[in-house]
Amino acid sequence: MSVLADLLAALFERRYLAAGDPDPRNRSLEELARDLLGSSGEISGMALARHMLDRYAGLGDADKAAFFGFLARDLSLDAEALRAALQAFEAAPSRESYAAVMAAAEPPRQELARRLNQVPGATGQLVAMRADLLRLMREDPGLGVVDLDLRHLFSSWFNRGFLVLRPISWSSPADVLEKIIAYEAVHAIDSWDDLRRRLAPQDRRCFAFFHPAMPDEPLIFVEVALTRGIPGAIHDLLSEPRETIRAQEADTAVFYSISNCQPGLAGISFGNSLIKQVVADLAQELPDLGTFVTLSPIPGLARWLSETGRPLPEEPEARRAIAARYLLEARRADGTPFDPVARFHLGNGALIHAIHAGADRSANGLRQSGGVMVNYLYDRARIVRNHERFATTGQIAASPAVRALAASADKKTD
Amino acid sequence: MSVLADLLAALFERRYLAAGDPDPRNRSLEELARDLLGSSGEISGMALARHMLDRYAGLGDADKAAFFGFLARDLSLDAEALRAALQAFEAAPSRESYAAVMAAAEPPRQELARRLNQVPGATGQLVAMRADLLRLMREDPGLGVVDLDLRHLFSSWFNRGFLVLRPISWSSPADVLEKIIAYEAVHAIDSWDDLRRRLAPQDRRCFAFFHPAMPDEPLIFVEVALTRGIPGAIHDLLSEPRETIRAQEADTAVFYSISNCQPGLAGISFGNSLIKQVVADLAQELPDLGTFVTLSPIPGLARWLSETGRPLPEEPEARRAIAARYLLEARRADGTPFDPVARFHLGNGALIHAIHAGADRSANGLRQSGGVMVNYLYDRARIVRNHERFATTGQIAASPAVRALAASADKKTD
Amino acid sequence: MSVLADLLAALFERRYLAAGDPDPRNRSLEELARDLLGSSGEISGMALARHMLDRYAGLGDADKAAFFGFLARDLSLDAEALRAALQAFEAAPSRESYAAVMAAAEPPRQELARRLNQVPGATGQLVAMRADLLRLMREDPGLGVVDLDLRHLFSSWFNRGFLVLRPISWSSPADVLEKIIAYEAVHAIDSWDDLRRRLAPQDRRCFAFFHPAMPDEPLIFVEVALTRGIPGAIHDLLSEPRETIRAQEADTAVFYSISNCQPGLAGISFGNSLIKQVVADLAQELPDLGTFVTLSPIPGLARWLSETGRPLPEEPEARRAIAARYLLEARRADGTPFDPVARFHLGNGALIHAIHAGADRSANGLRQSGGVMVNYLYDRARIVRNHERFATTGQIAASPAVRALAASADKKTD
Amino acid sequence: MSVLADLLAALFERRYLAAGDPDPRNRSLEELARDLLGSSGEISGMALARHMLDRYAGLGDADKAAFFGFLARDLSLDAEALRAALQAFEAAPSRESYAAVMAAAEPPRQELARRLNQVPGATGQLVAMRADLLRLMREDPGLGVVDLDLRHLFSSWFNRGFLVLRPISWSSPADVLEKIIAYEAVHAIDSWDDLRRRLAPQDRRCFAFFHPAMPDEPLIFVEVALTRGIPGAIHDLLSEPRETIRAQEADTAVFYSISNCQPGLAGISFGNSLIKQVVADLAQELPDLGTFVTLSPIPGLARWLSETGRPLPEEPEARRAIAARYLLEARRADGTPFDPVARFHLGNGALIHAIHAGADRSANGLRQSGGVMVNYLYDRARIVRNHERFATTGQIAASPAVRALAASADKKTD
Repeated sequence: MSVLADLLAALFERRYLAAGDPDPRNRSLEELARDLLGSSGEISGMALARHMLDRYAGLGDADKAAFFGFLARDLSLDAEALRAALQAFEAAPSRESYAAVMAAAEPPRQELARRLNQVPGATGQLVAMRADLLRLMREDPGLGVVDLDLRHLFSSWFNRGFLVLRPISWSSPADVLEKIIAYEAVHAIDSWDDLRRRLAPQDRRCFAFFHPAMPDEPLIFVEVALTRGIPGAIHDLLSEPRETIRAQEADTAVFYSISNCQPGLAGISFGNSLIKQVVADLAQELPDLGTFVTLSPIPGLARWLSETGRPLPEEPEARRAIAARYLLEARRADGTPFDPVARFHLGNGALIHAIHAGADRSANGLRQSGGVMVNYLYDRARIVRNHERFATTGQIAASPAVRALAASADKKTD
Repeated sequence: MSVLADLLAALFERRYLAAGDPDPRNRSLEELARDLLGSSGEISGMALARHMLDRYAGLGDADKAAFFGFLARDLSLDAEALRAALQAFEAAPSRESYAAVMAAAEPPRQELARRLNQVPGATGQLVAMRADLLRLMREDPGLGVVDLDLRHLFSSWFNRGFLVLRPISWSSPADVLEKIIAYEAVHAIDSWDDLRRRLAPQDRRCFAFFHPAMPDEPLIFVEVALTRGIPGAIHDLLSEPRETIRAQEADTAVFYSISNCQPGLAGISFGNSLIKQVVADLAQELPDLGTFVTLSPIPGLARWLSETGRPLPEEPEARRAIAARYLLEARRADGTPFDPVARFHLGNGALIHAIHAGADRSANGLRQSGGVMVNYLYDRARIVRNHERFATTGQIAASPAVRALAASADKKTD
Repeated sequence: MSVLADLLAALFERRYLAAGDPDPRNRSLEELARDLLGSSGEISGMALARHMLDRYAGLGDADKAAFFGFLARDLSLDAEALRAALQAFEAAPSRESYAAVMAAAEPPRQELARRLNQVPGATGQLVAMRADLLRLMREDPGLGVVDLDLRHLFSSWFNRGFLVLRPISWSSPADVLEKIIAYEAVHAIDSWDDLRRRLAPQDRRCFAFFHPAMPDEPLIFVEVALTRGIPGAIHDLLSEPRETIRAQEADTAVFYSISNCQPGLAGISFGNSLIKQVVADLAQELPDLGTFVTLSPIPGLARWLSETGRPLPEEPEARRAIAARYLLEARRADGTPFDPVARFHLGNGALIHAIHAGADRSANGLRQSGGVMVNYLYDRARIVRNHERFATTGQIAASPAVRALAASADKKTD
Repeated sequence: MSVLADLLAALFERRYLAAGDPDPRNRSLEELARDLLGSSGEISGMALARHMLDRYAGLGDADKAAFFGFLARDLSLDAEALRAALQAFEAAPSRESYAAVMAAAEPPRQELARRLNQVPGATGQLVAMRADLLRLMREDPGLGVVDLDLRHLFSSWFNRGFLVLRPISWSSPADVLEKIIAYEAVHAIDSWDDLRRRLAPQDRRCFAFFHPAMPDEPLIFVEVALTRGIPGAIHDLLSEPRETIRAQEADTAVFYSISNCQPGLAGISFGNSLIKQVVADLAQELPDLGTFVTLSPIPGLARWLSETGRPLPEEPEARRAIAARYLLEARRADGTPFDPVARFHLGNGALIHAIHAGADRSANGLRQSGGVMVNYLYDRARIVRNHERFATTGQIAASPAVRALAASADKKTD
């Protein structure tokens, strides 16, 4: 690869000498972007793209924001041209007039991203670029239009058909594993020994989606415990020492942590596909697995209690009851569940199966939900029906026990 | 994979039973397309997509044309909606109004293609679908708008950054090699023995681009001979027996055949990148290679002679001369070279280096160019300049010898 | 690899220049063998070994025979030294005296083979060397002692624990597949199309043992057809066109061809392990497979009939009957079955299940057995018992139908 | 694999039930060993071998010693039989009588080891078994004869031609990397971060030999630093932060740590081949590397000083001088260098290039050599000559500077 890079670098410099142009290192990123979009970009484009990506990587936040501003302002949709093309198309629809609409409807910054992406390794750099953008957008909402274009491109590039599910194990490459340690967002992995405990035993599994153009970068991963029965506390799964069982003895697969790895892919959803495919793969490998369930945090509980002026009950049963009520009833303005994790699993067709107090003793667990956790159950016979009802009427699926628990909360707290 | 398919098939059927819908096998492809685009497509979409692709594969041409007609007509751009969104955006530009324009500017058939593509293996099936479309468009030009959308999507999916260059050798998988035999378009491979002669000797190479979602399907490949000196006839390269040289002894790499494999990727160009990367890889492996050259057919010569009422000269020198003149002067209406192979290599920055009579004795070679062939030279010091001049002023780079040869044709024939 | 070779070649030549020795190219293979066994072989040994293997490969049969004669005569057991070491050991058994016996009991030609084997790729060349030896031994039985030493070494090197079972399919490398074509010994593969018909359909399988040091060279392979019911004729399996079934529909796996690939590994048996492991792998992949059976030739039938003065019956039933009798009763002097294929499968614990006339219409099939074939059945519940009885008492397992058939032959022909 | 194991386990139990034999779990390891060597071992052998290896792994040291005692005593050489076979051979040399000598000269415990080795994974277990044996031999030297047989077998199995050199990097599997941490014997790796510092930077390399039957177990590995100039202290290489250079800028490859991983392969030497092949591979990848050198400990210096009643000088120059003298002059009874690391590198053809005081500040480095270290230089033009002289006359190659340094020690200390 480096030889190719060297060759291209050589080509690149020759190009500018030949044409009598100024050295690209003296040109602004904006000028280089116009060069790359220009007619001669086809031959020298790869070297130009690499140079631009390297230059971008070296910028500070102010310069990055300025570059995004340029994209938002100067490489944007030409509304007038689009209107004209549209009129011509409506007047005389044809392949040519349709092509003109399509061309006018796409702002040049989309083509710029595609041309940057011709360099090996560029995909990951563009994903990182969007992570910068999402951060800088908070200061300057005007950059949001650039994000829409990147998100549109990424939806195509990271189409489900291009993703590859790979098991992550203790014999995975260390440079992938260190990313699992870094990205675990639910129950922090505090050392390589901790990681080994989650990957090496035969009753533990981990799976991640990868994109072929970012082979060392997991996009999202899920950690799974194979158990007998449904566990009610995270320390039952993670504390040491514990008794390992043979994978064949397990009747339950517990998805106890799902973590997105790429901030730059926010909003490009693949979590739903991940769980479906892991369920399918585990069911094939271990036909005796009958139950697929999560052990999930309730990250919005404490905030909701605080916003609605309710105290967090001291007594475990009361905590479970108020959590049940929260999961079944607390909604956002748009009618969807208040709890983000609930939104995710209920949207996938899971149901609320059971609620456990004293289940997460970590500082974070105590702060966000008073230590309460929840099992979402993926019952393959009911996934589609649950999903349909949730999507169309907002109806939340739950076990009778959870419904009864929520009802008891009403009596206690209202 | 098949277990996943089975599971999804099971999910799929349950979905329809659960919802009381009619069996998908009784629904039309058009109805299924609307289902897949609908809100519940997220959970049952993978099974639906697979079912649709299987159904499509079983159709005859008339039904395929009807399906494309549906895409052209019913899943097309809503011009009115786009106009309204555009007005709103111009009145009050914002992230939201821009998002509305983008949404309105994309016809639903693009999203349909992305949802079909979530199934493993779908990418190849969608490429085959476009091959059908390009064929059927000849009868019904109105389908051309569908092609524009597929082409737009494929340009994103087959972006250079996602392609992988792989050497093809006699230890490549047989199912890939049989495609090399099938797709060789320049000098037909007539048997596995013939293939072995082109791949196994150490002075022969072959490289192809692959896409990760179509791992067994080469997209385009180039065959290379490593030689001492520039060869002037294809039988010097392909006839047997011949003396093999050690790769380290070669000073010249001859690109003697470049073949596209996927009719469904017509217009998505990667030939240019292929040659650049193969040059880079060979230069790394064999530092003594100093010359990179083609031995190319001249497919348009006979037709041009016929169209311009010139006879094909009998005498070899005169044939060479008229071929030189043709390559330097014959142009299409748009000013680009008449010869398609010349357009390709000159557009990449090559120059016309030498012309050989009696160089291709095959029936096809005699018919299309009276057996004349040409070397295009990739001189790394001049590629960018050649390309720039060709792209901007249409100037064709050629060796002095070739220019002199063309001049001699003027004297002889005019 | 070639760079290493070059470096070693350089080291090699320097060695001789440095030491003032004559050029190795002027030394005899015998002298080089003594050099390699000598004390300085440790550093320059790899280059010396490669040089010797290359030299050997260029020899004609007479020179090869002379080299083996040298090994037989001059690098042989020193009986006197062994006797002395043995006496010392018996007088005072100790680690040291035992080590001396071991050292004396091993002729230097074994160490020579181990030192030759340090070169990458040497293992295959040594196997080819033994193939030469086995051929030349027919002329000069005195070389047989060399063969015993190679065979002893190879038994260690090709120990079952070092072999790898790999499926062979239509996506295997062409350079492996051309060896399958070349080595198929039972039902010749006449073209790449014929090979594809045996590998590509989902109701056909092939498996081979490989050794890691000879990764492109299958050692032995078996071809398998997945069928419904037990087939009674080879053309039912091999003729085209035929209806392919889904692998999941099959209830029977038919081993219809087993071929050894390496004449140089004669007598190093792994066929027995191959069948056991293929049965295990197929049973895992396709749990509905209930029957594991061969469709085998009867290569000794015609010869036995001729030796015992019996005519080959014209009538199919009579042919079946005499074949049954032959398989159950014809024995060699040592009491084992006359038929080599019967010896192999009965020794593995199979039983004679059924006999079919008109089952092999090939010239070879008609010549060797009048077209009669046999199914040997691997009944997992009876393999061990069958094997035990066969190994200890010579008892041959057979179905009642086959026994009745053999009895009918008695009536007809005696 | 596990399915195969299950199948074999099933076969195994059926065997004993069928034959009416006692359950193998009730039989002693000694009885099972005789079973495995017996005639019926061919079919049920794989299950029996696995059962034996599992049983062995569960034993305590006393039972292991008893089992080795059984091997030493009861599966030993039959001296009488060997004497008889030898007499017969001398009386009438033939293929048959030679075969009889060979058979008699091999104790049954060698065949037992080969039969145990038919199980996948057995090779590693047998290597671990020898590690046990070497430990237990210290108590019971009578077991030494068993070791001689295992060592003989292992020399064949781990023949250089079967070993595979693999680079170890930060993208190697974690289960391999944790063994690098565990086995590093020279400069301890104290954490995964420390390991990353030795593997991830582009001016650091690591290579290991593997055997195909033990794919996760490195046999021996070497750590390499790419530097400008020859370093004189280990903390220059290992301390952080330090400036990383591009690999292409380096002129020197420093072998700063070589560690054997398998106690059970003691005496089966491959270190010499490792260095030769790493030099060849690095020279190919980085043609600008001109110097190949070690930075090595001097583990015997302090002990030699103590044994010869010399004090360790305080002054750095004096320390260097006495170390030079030690390396050039201190010998064992057999005339070879006293220092084990010196024996290894001088035996490989290296020369003593330079000596550094204050070069290893670790507790171990101070204890064993007062912090002094040495560079051995692998000068490709002189390796063979150095090796020859060392092997034949014991002459030690050293730079003039080192010789002068040693001479100065004479003056100072005598």
